[in-house]
Amino acid sequence: MKQLVAVDWGSSSLRGARMDAGGKVQEHRSFDRGILTVAPGEFPSVFEACFGDWMNSGDTICLMSGMVGSKQGWLEAPYCSCPAGFEEVAAKLAWVDPGRVAIVPGLSCEHDGLPGVAGLQCIPDVMRGEETQILGALQLLGLHQGLVVLPGTHSKWARVQAGRVQSFSTFMTGELFALLRQHSILSRTLPAGDGEFDAGAFDQGVTLALRGDSLLHTAFGVRTLSLFDRLPAAALPSYLSGLVIGEELRGRTWQGAADVVIVGAGALSLRYQRALALQNVPAQRLGSEATWAGLWAIANKNFPD
Amino acid sequence: MKQLVAVDWGSSSLRGARMDAGGKVQEHRSFDRGILTVAPGEFPSVFEACFGDWMNSGDTICLMSGMVGSKQGWLEAPYCSCPAGFEEVAAKLAWVDPGRVAIVPGLSCEHDGLPGVAGLQCIPDVMRGEETQILGALQLLGLHQGLVVLPGTHSKWARVQAGRVQSFSTFMTGELFALLRQHSILSRTLPAGDGEFDAGAFDQGVTLALRGDSLLHTAFGVRTLSLFDRLPAAALPSYLSGLVIGEELRGRTWQGAADVVIVGAGALSLRYQRALALQNVPAQRLGSEATWAGLWAIANKNFPD
Repeated sequence: MKQLVAVDWGSSSLRGARMDAGGKVQEHRSFDRGILTVAPGEFPSVFEACFGDWMNSGDTICLMSGMVGSKQGWLEAPYCSCPAGFEEVAAKLAWVDPGRVAIVPGLSCEHDGLPGVAGLQCIPDVMRGEETQILGALQLLGLHQGLVVLPGTHSKWARVQAGRVQSFSTFMTGELFALLRQHSILSRTLPAGDGEFDAGAFDQGVTLALRGDSLLHTAFGVRTLSLFDRLPAAALPSYLSGLVIGEELRGRTWQGAADVVIVGAGALSLRYQRALALQNVPAQRLGSEATWAGLWAIANKNFPD
Repeated sequence: MKQLVAVDWGSSSLRGARMDAGGKVQEHRSFDRGILTVAPGEFPSVFEACFGDWMNSGDTICLMSGMVGSKQGWLEAPYCSCPAGFEEVAAKLAWVDPGRVAIVPGLSCEHDGLPGVAGLQCIPDVMRGEETQILGALQLLGLHQGLVVLPGTHSKWARVQAGRVQSFSTFMTGELFALLRQHSILSRTLPAGDGEFDAGAFDQGVTLALRGDSLLHTAFGVRTLSLFDRLPAAALPSYLSGLVIGEELRGRTWQGAADVVIVGAGALSLRYQRALALQNVPAQRLGSEATWAGLWAIANKNFPD
């Protein structure tokens, strides 16, 4: 393999790793240059400014994953439909600089919709960037199947069998938490700062959510518990976080479930691990190394030696 | 009975009706002077400016319901705990001008929480203003029991037996719809204006929500259905409205349910009636007349002749 510049270019952040021919990360960089900060036509110059020096060596290619492949990104990369693994993804790279710089396609899948209703027989789902993390994580763990959870603004749950993502579901959990926290009536009740995580209150929120009441109802309890001084204000953000994450887990059956792997940044991943443990579901955790491993394996499919 | 000035003073609006000694509405007024626009200490002068002339006749009293009785209102009226009917509410009026002007107390109730967990054994719920509408609506319909739904920013579902509200639940449905519509990633997908109501798309959203998938997931479908051109943009707000209202109805069992009564403004009430009809649940509808009837009946308990 050649040397690889692995780039994770999302909506709000831009991160890169320089990897040697053996797949080892030599150097990291990150920038506040998510695609939302980049004007159309400016992608090449931002890329050059951030990673141009890494690309100078002749034997180097660059693979990028994330929203950089969306309509608002550098070049729209068509989705790869599920089931999809390394082979399918590697075969559909969108080259912005042929033979040198390419974008990894996102994945799409279809959920059961309303039979016989025009436009709604199936309801599509999409990801961009997470496919690389999922495949990279399983590769790092030596797994060919599993349930992979990527917590975040839009959490993803992906079911992998035989090394391919079979299907996945998106949950607007992080976004909804932020909306409730900052813009709803609860913002008047909740303390302004993040404060310290209250594990007990979080667990109680998860437990209550798993009972099945609608979040539309349980979230209002954050206000009334505060009105009646039943919980200290400092515990309320963790309690609400538990309600929202518990709602994401609600209705899932774990019997006979495959290995569960959580991929994501530390604090939020720990909350998911905690919520899963409340249901006696053990889960492994991986961070950004999954992205680099995924990009390296995809590159390897195209330049195997 | 004396002449009654019936006032519904909520967060964002102020409405009043002058009723004669027989309970007939003689005149209506409404103002953009919800309590959120009134500085502390200014309630008497706003009241005087809006209704002072109505209060000039010696034999007139005024009853007010709504958030005017909250901590941010004119005078904090203690909650009346469920079960509560006309008797209990009328006995707990908070007088701002003794014998002349009073505020109707809101209701509180307790939901099952987490047994043995300090602060969370029960989770309180509250309403201010809706108690008057509920009791007034049942009185107008000659019912002593029923399930009363008050759609809105914070929808309420109240169970009434023997003329008393036994319990009720709040759902942040209207607020969540507005947050998703205006502040979430869906705001980029949805057309800016309200547009025309698409009954088919609304029904489809309700049907999908009733299937039980989390709103955190189904709401993301609004984005993907648009990305893949499965539904026209103009249909998406109605579809999302169906998803959110359907989520409110999810999990409710209707077998052996009492009469269902919807109290609220026209367009939104019609959506709830439609969503209930999809589950073969017939529902009657009432508007603001419920408030005036409720206030009059409460006044009547205090000044019976």
